[in-house]
This record gives sequence, structure tokens and C-alpha cells, in this order.
Amino acid sequence: MKKLINSPEQVVPDALRGMAAAHPDLRVDHENRVVLRASGAVEGKVGLVSGGGSGHEPMHGGFVGHGMLDAACAGEVFTSPTPDQMQAATLAVSGGAGVLHIVKNYTGDVMNFEMAAELAAAEGDVEVRSVVVDDDVAVQDSLYTAGRRGVGATVLLEKIVGAAAEERRDLAACEELAKKVNGNARSMGMALTSCVVPAAGVPTFELGDDEFELGIGIHGEPGRERRRLGPLREVAEQLVEPVLQDLPAADGAPVVAFVNSMGGTPLIELYGLYAEVAAICEKAGVSIARSLVGPYITSLEMAGASVTLLRADDDLLSLWDAPVSTPGLRWGM
Amino acid sequence: MKKLINSPEQVVPDALRGMAAAHPDLRVDHENRVVLRASGAVEGKVGLVSGGGSGHEPMHGGFVGHGMLDAACAGEVFTSPTPDQMQAATLAVSGGAGVLHIVKNYTGDVMNFEMAAELAAAEGDVEVRSVVVDDDVAVQDSLYTAGRRGVGATVLLEKIVGAAAEERRDLAACEELAKKVNGNARSMGMALTSCVVPAAGVPTFELGDDEFELGIGIHGEPGRERRRLGPLREVAEQLVEPVLQDLPAADGAPVVAFVNSMGGTPLIELYGLYAEVAAICEKAGVSIARSLVGPYITSLEMAGASVTLLRADDDLLSLWDAPVSTPGLRWGM
Repeated sequence: MKKLINSPEQVVPDALRGMAAAHPDLRVDHENRVVLRASGAVEGKVGLVSGGGSGHEPMHGGFVGHGMLDAACAGEVFTSPTPDQMQAATLAVSGGAGVLHIVKNYTGDVMNFEMAAELAAAEGDVEVRSVVVDDDVAVQDSLYTAGRRGVGATVLLEKIVGAAAEERRDLAACEELAKKVNGNARSMGMALTSCVVPAAGVPTFELGDDEFELGIGIHGEPGRERRRLGPLREVAEQLVEPVLQDLPAADGAPVVAFVNSMGGTPLIELYGLYAEVAAICEKAGVSIARSLVGPYITSLEMAGASVTLLRADDDLLSLWDAPVSTPGLRWGM
Repeated sequence: MKKLINSPEQVVPDALRGMAAAHPDLRVDHENRVVLRASGAVEGKVGLVSGGGSGHEPMHGGFVGHGMLDAACAGEVFTSPTPDQMQAATLAVSGGAGVLHIVKNYTGDVMNFEMAAELAAAEGDVEVRSVVVDDDVAVQDSLYTAGRRGVGATVLLEKIVGAAAEERRDLAACEELAKKVNGNARSMGMALTSCVVPAAGVPTFELGDDEFELGIGIHGEPGRERRRLGPLREVAEQLVEPVLQDLPAADGAPVVAFVNSMGGTPLIELYGLYAEVAAICEKAGVSIARSLVGPYITSLEMAGASVTLLRADDDLLSLWDAPVSTPGLRWGM
């Protein structure tokens, strides 16, 4: 295993030290491994907290800042953060308008966030609601999940609900909006290679020289099946068709198209994939209103990509366009 | 070779199709493989043109937009664009105030940009100046280069000179500023793995399971030497020390610190490296005024990283902070 690390134990704390040093707009609570806005809790604003295992950067710590999250809890690589971390984050961002937990649907995350919500309500008198993201159409249940996994829609949801919270929409409205985004988004991923979890030191799985894993999870957990790798346009069809089949029809409403690298796939290939995705959508009569292309929800250095489509009405698009200033996503300010 | 491509010949045109589809602010001249601003040449503004082999994305096409480049020419992967492409770009962005060519120091790029400048001057009556970027302290000459190679400083230079051109500084001032940035920036890179050029289909080089290449070039060309891979803090020292030794002293002037992924190194490792770089700079009494952490000048999927330090006075910092809106770098607007 060749990695730019001091030791497997130091990977997460070292990365958090780096984030703190590189981004003066952020504050890192190193003891609890929570990334926060340096400016502190915003009075009267719903606080948005997410988090999960590390190894998916820039998600979630890189999405803390104006227009997106208030806090992100960093677990060990591919391991859920603890309820204590989530409770600390929840109390730290509470500005009196309640806190929304944005939880990807993995058993550990869901359980721990539930416990944290109870603790925060009991101890800090903070009203907590939560949304569970489960946009992955690849598999119904998985190694880490009852029900669908939460993947790319998480990024879009954190951006859109972040903008709504910034507008001072209330907790119920933010919760409802989050559920609407999740309900209208579908994703599918694939991998060309495994990643290596630092503490394991060996690849999570092996793939043949001509194979790819269709429907891969963001922890390298199995997807639908292994297929022979063909040209990009075939791969794109295998990603987009199941997404389109499952996407709620909505009388010509356009989509936000998000083409994501799992980490190791370079931008030159990702733009090629985007071109194929756009062509397939056009053929299917689905118009793309906005797009996002890059590594935003990754699996360490795994080579592969995922496609997320979100049906978006005018409200979602206007929230998407709103200013955002985080290390991972920044525009309009 | 497993890649998300249709064929090696289609990699560059497919990526350009994707960029055009994803970014309505850009216009792609597919015949000449030039990425341009959709808004066209800006009257009275110095036009900034760069370009080079593809495979380094987001550089250069991803840096076209307000506050940065006016055009970027895309060559085949790791292959210089032709003088015809550069001439087309130069004529397309000419707004009457002259055009500055930003050229990384590789023999093909330098020669072709020189030829393009002559052609544009003769045919289009456009005054062209050029700056050659050569910030890499690793080797004096290389496989592709007489003199030092141009690497990370190119990104910083395109941002800073882009802001100056936006302020309507004239051609001579932009040229002088570009030379100042280049003269005050130094870089050093390393690789854990090779990349695979699509047309070759095999890794450019092989490294042992415990080795890294110190001073790697962005085309996988050899650096200083192969070393045994130790902990991250040792790697960071091996990158930063030669940079600091070569960096012009400047009476306490701070630096812009740029920690770049070669493509395959994930953000979680890159932030760990940034933490070490910041600690080494602090120990050396070099204060970091601004930072940039991410994959900005890459070598396809190569795992590895580079460190660039730029001595920056108030003028450079204020130009760095100016609004920029490109697919690869975006803030303040």
C-alpha cells in the first residue's frame, strides 16, 4: 500500500489539521472531529449537520460554510462517526431555530444520528429533525444498508437545503425540502478499480483487467454485477438508463445532472462521460437545467464514476443557484 | 488499460464535447480544439491564451472564464497543440489591447506558441507577448525541456494575470506581472504511481511497491531520483525543502501555498500533506497568506502531489483575491 500518510491512525486527524490550516473560514473541533464554520452558530437559522465515514472528501467537511452545512462530523475512514460527535456538532450549530441532520442511509450513520438527536434534545433542548438520503438505484439492500444507499443526491441536497436555511426557512420547511430533493433524485455508480482503506492496507475487492462493477457502493461494497468494460457510451447507458427508469416523471421538469468521480477517474474522462450523459438525456427528452462535474463524493482513490439526476422545479433551481462558499463548492460570493 | 473512454482517439474531442455541454459560459471551437469564453473577445482587454497537451485537467480549459484565461488550446494527451490552434485562439480573443501567451516550458509548446505569435502578428495585426513558465526546481533539463519545466506556478499565474487583465492593465504590464509571478514561484512534485496515456495503453514507468519518484514531471518524465517511501512528513520535507532553498528571499513577504494532486491522490491525503507543508513553512519562518489545495494541474490518474510556493506582495495577493469564474476556480462572483 503506497499512500501519502503518516500512519493509518493519523489519516483523519492529519486531514483535519490540514483543513483547519488551509481554510480560515472553518474551525475544526479536533477532539470531536467536527468541522464547523469559524463564524459560529447563526442566530435564528436552522443548523445543518451532516457527517459520515471519512474517505469521501470533499464530502462532508468540504461542504461546511455559507450556503451549505453548519457542521460535519468525520468518522474514521468508511466508519460512522459516534453519537457523541454528532451531539457536539448539533449543540455547536444550534441558533435557536432547530437543527436538521442530513444522514446518508447506512445502518451505523442512521442509528448514531438518531441517538445524537435524542441526546441533543434531552441535554440541550434543541429540536432536531432528520432526513435520510437513499438515492442509489443500484441495490435494494447492501452490506451496510437496509434499503437503498445514500450517495450523490447528498451533495445536491446539502447545497439546496443549505440555501433554504440561509434564507431563514424554518425547520419544518427545511425538512420537507430535504425530503423533496431526496425523493426526486436517483443515482447509479460504477468502479474500474477498488480503493485501499488505509487500516486494511489491501484492496477491498479485485476486478479483472476487462471488468467493471456496476452499481458499486461508495465503500467498495458490491453493486449489481460485474460486466465486461465496453466503450464509454455503453457504460453511460448502463448508468443513466436505470436512473431514468426510476426517476419520477414530472411533466417536462428539467434535471440537475451531476457526474461524479469516485476519486481516481480524471476530469478528462469525466467530461467524456458527461457528454454521453447529456446525449442520452437529450434523446430521452429530459432537459438538463444545471450540471455539476467533478469529484464531490468519492471513495478514496477508487477509479469510477456515478451519475445523479435530480428533477428540479423553479424553487430547487433558484436554491441551487444561490451563493455558496465552502472549500468544495463555491459560487456567487 | 481500463479507462472511461470510447477510444484513445476520442478522449480529447469527447472531453471537449462534455465541457461545452456542461458549461454554458464557455464556447468550444471543436475544429481547432480551443476553449473560449462564450461572451467573446473583450474590447480593450488584454487577451490571455494558454494551452498545452491534454491530460492536466482542469488546466487549461477549466481556467477559461472571467478573471482568468480568454482561451485555451487543447493538444492530444501530453502533446503540444499546433501553431494553427494557437493562432486561431489568439485571433479569437483579440480585443485590440494585445494578447499574452502563457506557455509552460516544454520544447514543443514554446516552439509552437512562437510560431503562432508570428502568424497572428502577420495575419491579424495582433500584438503578442509571451511568458514562459519554468518553476519546477526538480531538474534543470528534462526529456521534454531545455531548462526547468513549467508546472504548478502556471495555475497561480493564470489566476493573478487574469485578474490584472480584467482590471485593464495593459499588455506590457501583464507581461511584466506574469514574469514576476514566475520569478517568485517554485515547485516540486512526486509520484507514487505512473499514469497510462490512452494511446500508449501501458504505464509510462514502473515503480516498486515501496518507492516514489521525487521530482516527477507532469508527463511522467523522470525526476531527481527514486526514494523509499516513508511517512508523509518525510515526503513533505523532501518536497518543501528544495522549494524553500530556491525561493527568492523577500524580507518576510508571505507566500501563496499550493498543494496539488497529480490526479489519483485523494483529497484526504492532500489535506494531510497541506498540514505538513504548513508546519514546515511555519518552522522556517515563512508565513502562508493564501492557500490552494486540490487537483488543478494533473497527470491523468497519476497518484502523487506537488507543492508550489509563491512569494506574494500586496499587489499579487489582491489580484489573487479578485473575483474569478471558471469551471476549475471560482470565487467572489
